[in-house]
Amino acid sequence: MCKPLHVLGLSGSLRRHSIHNALMLNAQRMAAPEMRVVIHDLSDLPLFNQDLETPAFPDSVARLHQAVAQADAVLLCVPEYNHGPSGVIKNALDWMSRPAGRSTAMGKPVAMLGASPGIGSTIRAQMSLRPTLNVMGMLPLTVADCVIPHSGTAFDPQGRIVDPSAEAALGRTLKAFQAWIVRLTAMAPA
Amino acid sequence: MCKPLHVLGLSGSLRRHSIHNALMLNAQRMAAPEMRVVIHDLSDLPLFNQDLETPAFPDSVARLHQAVAQADAVLLCVPEYNHGPSGVIKNALDWMSRPAGRSTAMGKPVAMLGASPGIGSTIRAQMSLRPTLNVMGMLPLTVADCVIPHSGTAFDPQGRIVDPSAEAALGRTLKAFQAWIVRLTAMAPA
Repeated sequence: MCKPLHVLGLSGSLRRHSIHNALMLNAQRMAAPEMRVVIHDLSDLPLFNQDLETPAFPDSVARLHQAVAQADAVLLCVPEYNHGPSGVIKNALDWMSRPAGRSTAMGKPVAMLGASPGIGSTIRAQMSLRPTLNVMGMLPLTVADCVIPHSGTAFDPQGRIVDPSAEAALGRTLKAFQAWIVRLTAMAPA
Repeated sequence: MCKPLHVLGLSGSLRRHSIHNALMLNAQRMAAPEMRVVIHDLSDLPLFNQDLETPAFPDSVARLHQAVAQADAVLLCVPEYNHGPSGVIKNALDWMSRPAGRSTAMGKPVAMLGASPGIGSTIRAQMSLRPTLNVMGMLPLTVADCVIPHSGTAFDPQGRIVDPSAEAALGRTLKAFQAWIVRLTAMAPA
C-alpha cells in the first residue's frame, strides 16, 4: 500500500474528559502504521432538520459529508446513554445518511468502540445502532466488537488504557477492522 | 377529576411540515376533554454534553426539565430515521434523564406515536426506544402502540388524519394512554 488507510474517527460524546474521546485517542495511538485515524469533531452539527438542507446543507454538515467522502472507513466511539446510543452520535448518523440514496457514507466500512463504568460496556447501544449502519449502506465490522467494562479502572487518569484485557480488546478490533477495510477496498468496483 | 390531565407533547422531528408534528396536532385535537396535550418545542436544545451542566443546565434544558415536571405524562412523536429513533428525540431524552437519579421524567407515564411513508410505521424506532424509557424510570404504555404506515395517504395535505384505520389507531392509543395515566396517577404516592 502506498499510503495508510484513512479512517475517520467520530466520537459520540462531547464532554471534554469523556472516556469515549480517550478511547478514540487510544485507538489513534494503537492503530498500525498502515491505518491513520483522523478525528472529526461533531459538536458543531445542528440538530437534524430536513428543512436546513435547502438551499444547501449547513457548513458543519457539508464538512462532515466531505470528511466521510475522503475517508476509507469510519470508526465510531459510541457512548451508551439510557440503554441506547447517544443522541449526539445518532444525530451525526442522521446527517451522514443524507441525501437519501446518495450519501457519502454508503459503502464505507465502519466499526464501533465503546466503554462504560459498569458491566454494560455499551453492548446495548452498539446492538441498537447496527441496523442503522446497515440501512445506511455502511459495512459494519461483523466480529471483534470492542466493548470495555469498568472504565474507571480500565483507563488511567490521563485516559490511557491500562487494563490488559481492555487494551487487548481494542487491539483485536483495530486489527480486524484494518483487515476488513483492506478486504472491502480490494473488492470495491474500480 | 377537577382539571384535565396535562400531557407534554414532544415531537422528534423539527421539519416544519413534518408528519410527526401533524400527528401531534391530531393527537391534541382528538384527545378527550379530560386530557390536554401541551406541545413543547425541542429545536433549541443543544447537543447533549455533560460539561454544559455546570454551573447550571442551559436555559432550554431547564425549561424542558420544568415542562416535564409540570406534566402528568409525556407523549412522544418518534420519527424513524435509518431504522432508529431520530437523534433529535434521543438527544431530548438524554437531557431529560439528567440529573441521574433525580430527573423530572422519573415515574412519568409515557406513550409513543409514529408514522412513516412505507410499511415500517416507526416500529423499529419505538422498539429500540422502549428500553431507554424503561431505564429512565418512565412508565411506557404497554399496549396500543400507535404506528401508522403509508403516511402519504393517511394524512391530507393539511396534515389531518383521513385514513379511518390510522385515525382509529391514534384514537385507541389516546384512550389507552388516558386510562394508563389515570391508573398510575391514582397509584402514585401522595
